[in-house]
Amino acid sequence: MEKPPGGKPWINIISPKIAPPSLKDNTADVDRLIKGIKKTLQAERINVEFSLAKTLPQTLKHYNYNVDAAVFENPNGWHLIDVFSAQKETRIYGLAVDLGSSTVVTRLVELKSHELTDETSFHNPQVQIGTDILTRIHFAAQDGGLEKLQTLLVERLNREIHRLAEKHHIERRSIVGLSVAGNTTMTHLFLGLDPYWICREPYIPVVNKPDRIRSKALGLEINPEAPVLVFPNVGSYFGGDLIAGILASGMMDRQAPSILVDVGTNAEVVVGNSDWLMACAGAAGPALEGGVAHMGMMAGPGVIDHVRIGPQPDPFTIKTIDNKPPVGICGSGLIDLVAELFLAGMIDERGKYVRKKCGPRLRVIDDIHHLVIVPPEDSKTGHALTLSQPDIDALMRSKAAMYTILTTLTNTVNVPLHEVNRFFIAGTFGSFIDPQSAITLGMLPDLPLKAYIPLGNTSLEGAAMALLSAEAKEKIFHIRDQTTYLELNVNQDFMNAFSAAKFIPHTDRALFPSVKVRAS
Amino acid sequence: MEKPPGGKPWINIISPKIAPPSLKDNTADVDRLIKGIKKTLQAERINVEFSLAKTLPQTLKHYNYNVDAAVFENPNGWHLIDVFSAQKETRIYGLAVDLGSSTVVTRLVELKSHELTDETSFHNPQVQIGTDILTRIHFAAQDGGLEKLQTLLVERLNREIHRLAEKHHIERRSIVGLSVAGNTTMTHLFLGLDPYWICREPYIPVVNKPDRIRSKALGLEINPEAPVLVFPNVGSYFGGDLIAGILASGMMDRQAPSILVDVGTNAEVVVGNSDWLMACAGAAGPALEGGVAHMGMMAGPGVIDHVRIGPQPDPFTIKTIDNKPPVGICGSGLIDLVAELFLAGMIDERGKYVRKKCGPRLRVIDDIHHLVIVPPEDSKTGHALTLSQPDIDALMRSKAAMYTILTTLTNTVNVPLHEVNRFFIAGTFGSFIDPQSAITLGMLPDLPLKAYIPLGNTSLEGAAMALLSAEAKEKIFHIRDQTTYLELNVNQDFMNAFSAAKFIPHTDRALFPSVKVRAS
Repeated sequence: MEKPPGGKPWINIISPKIAPPSLKDNTADVDRLIKGIKKTLQAERINVEFSLAKTLPQTLKHYNYNVDAAVFENPNGWHLIDVFSAQKETRIYGLAVDLGSSTVVTRLVELKSHELTDETSFHNPQVQIGTDILTRIHFAAQDGGLEKLQTLLVERLNREIHRLAEKHHIERRSIVGLSVAGNTTMTHLFLGLDPYWICREPYIPVVNKPDRIRSKALGLEINPEAPVLVFPNVGSYFGGDLIAGILASGMMDRQAPSILVDVGTNAEVVVGNSDWLMACAGAAGPALEGGVAHMGMMAGPGVIDHVRIGPQPDPFTIKTIDNKPPVGICGSGLIDLVAELFLAGMIDERGKYVRKKCGPRLRVIDDIHHLVIVPPEDSKTGHALTLSQPDIDALMRSKAAMYTILTTLTNTVNVPLHEVNRFFIAGTFGSFIDPQSAITLGMLPDLPLKAYIPLGNTSLEGAAMALLSAEAKEKIFHIRDQTTYLELNVNQDFMNAFSAAKFIPHTDRALFPSVKVRAS
Repeated sequence: MEKPPGGKPWINIISPKIAPPSLKDNTADVDRLIKGIKKTLQAERINVEFSLAKTLPQTLKHYNYNVDAAVFENPNGWHLIDVFSAQKETRIYGLAVDLGSSTVVTRLVELKSHELTDETSFHNPQVQIGTDILTRIHFAAQDGGLEKLQTLLVERLNREIHRLAEKHHIERRSIVGLSVAGNTTMTHLFLGLDPYWICREPYIPVVNKPDRIRSKALGLEINPEAPVLVFPNVGSYFGGDLIAGILASGMMDRQAPSILVDVGTNAEVVVGNSDWLMACAGAAGPALEGGVAHMGMMAGPGVIDHVRIGPQPDPFTIKTIDNKPPVGICGSGLIDLVAELFLAGMIDERGKYVRKKCGPRLRVIDDIHHLVIVPPEDSKTGHALTLSQPDIDALMRSKAAMYTILTTLTNTVNVPLHEVNRFFIAGTFGSFIDPQSAITLGMLPDLPLKAYIPLGNTSLEGAAMALLSAEAKEKIFHIRDQTTYLELNVNQDFMNAFSAAKFIPHTDRALFPSVKVRAS
């Protein structure tokens, strides 16, 4: 993770000078405070919500007119959030949230020092309604469904907020800003906006740029007047999480074209530079998330994330997360494994098991070939961990889809892949993947390895950047307006390209000069 | 009442062109509407409250994207209020409210035509807590007191709104703006702001310029997003009702100095021109409101509003409101009566009854002189209507206070009274008063009669003007900023002036050359 950029904040903590009222200066309390803040900020106007104005006189008197003020700026000018006792040790916080459909990650940051106070994650409780987005959209159309989905999420987030506040001994009202990045549907469900038309022609969201949201409107238990920055979307299929990703990558500031890939159930790809951004998304299949293979699972302790097959193939050199006994394999491990199987000649160019190379490891269960990756005695489960031919077939489709989406997009904008010298990979997937293995499989293009840059959770990183910097916040709207979404036209051309990519590394070997098969 | 001025409105009804969504243009519903409105208004930005954004897609689809939009402008730019079916006959309303401590008056205006749809009034239900402002301020400090006072008023206003809507067959949501003028305390009680410090040193309101209020924040049952324009105050003793009065008088647009007087329990006086405004208020005594004299009462049917005493003093020529049998006398009638008594020689310069001139009309009851104004056989009550010496004494104090306040204020700003060629008199009092009688008494200065201009309910008139015109709305803040409030210093000078004014018309007869005693 990079340190958040400095620069001008849009949420600001200032120490206005305010004289207590007297018979000689009977300016009202609210106007008195506004006057002080205007002077400090050199601003022409300070907006104070009416609900806040009601409570200010009491607070001001309580602190004897000696206060720090939390303010924020938006296109309408400066707005007051709250006032606090003017003490050196007053700490004011913001919360950045990556609103994933399965996992929600929060980052608590102190706003004056930019100090990262904590980072936590929890399962999105909407999973109990449905693991996939479509189920949730359908559920939202039921009576009370949308409210239920929103409440589940907000209540869980509130629990996290309470927990964070207790742990760090902070008042919840000192959390004065929230920044949230999520895909378009997740954002709608968080805001209580009807997602009905997101998955129905003509596929339009309720809103592209959610605006003017204070935490109290969502029932969030931080400062009630805290501004909630919700990342905008380009459309139903290109959400705020990707805009956050682009922001975190910095690709919109580079003259040379870069590519950003975020792999989940969908593969989302962006190509562009400081002048333009073109994006598309397509079903790459859940294989890459570890969601399909029999032994596949999400990254976690004991999950195989790296595999090497030496000249003596038995046993495979296996690395698990936290070096725990193996329990399964994640997407990046699977790519490593299949790439190594290919390099070892144990599968052919079509991804089919080569019997004579596999030897006794290859077993037939229910008429299906399974390769034993970890024998029962070495696995945590006591059962053999095996990779079936259909598992590989699924990965082959995923990797072919990924590569086809990449080439289709770059062809559309006429950017030769070799001109791309930054290839950002977002997400957990990006953190664990070995680019060399992905190149070997022909999933990613044959670029110099140093071009590949894992970025981790770019949705959270982007959310945190936009929370802390006015410039970063402005950029997300600039990114939104600059991004063109390419509707993937799954026509004959696409299908031809897809078929050609279903080989390892590719039908056209010239595209992957670096890939050399070890075994013969 | 003058017709409201034309000019640019700040609440506007426009007909944006909006294309329904399609696969080729998948802009979100909210952003689609904003785009259309921006184009129509030629505005850079349209603000949409988040709570409104949630409901818009359904409304837009319901009207097939063929809508009129109600928008309003404030210093932060343009804001959407709501959308309506785009039909020629769509009528959109605003409500102007004069928030009096005893009577609330509402005026319903159609915003496109400026047509006055209705004007109604009701007793301020807070009277049940206390007829005077101080009692209400003390009550507000009790547990739940402030809420009770606010609720009483808001619920009563809602009942009026429901009644108006039914009577004129309009949807309440088509009332899209509210403009409210009242004194500082009434405004605080309406907004639920703590009035505690209004009557305590250093006498400061919670807020001078209430801002950013939508009707839903107050529980008003008009369009929930309707902006509520609450007139600002200069301080605890100079409220929005007077700012509305200045606006209605137009004195802030004239180069020559004018005076505005609003008489209630307090006499409030403003002098000024297009460059400056100076105001003060002082207890003129309730006599002028008809609140003290035995036979005194508020204006109403059967209430004596004019009296003439001919050379043959018996009987007095009496005019009552609606020409009903007399039941009592109102403030303006009292001024007429006492002025005539003086001109007829029935009272002397000190306001004392002249026995020989009064004859058998003058009776002694409980050692106090009473003059029979209406004998029992002519009165509605069957009892004689009489005016006691203490009644006259009270009026003498009131008229002396009024004149002293006027001269103190004009002396402070160095404006000779004879240079004032517009003397506006606001309120019911102003509508009924005979300036000649007030001059005779020495309550108002001896200006040419044409200088005196009754204005009626200027608080309501100003509220309506500011509801309809952006320029008028801007002016009220300009007036607020330009007005200096003069704290009346009741020192020896003031008391001397007051004593000198306790004669009819004045100790210095040269100040009232037009006043000639008829009788000798």
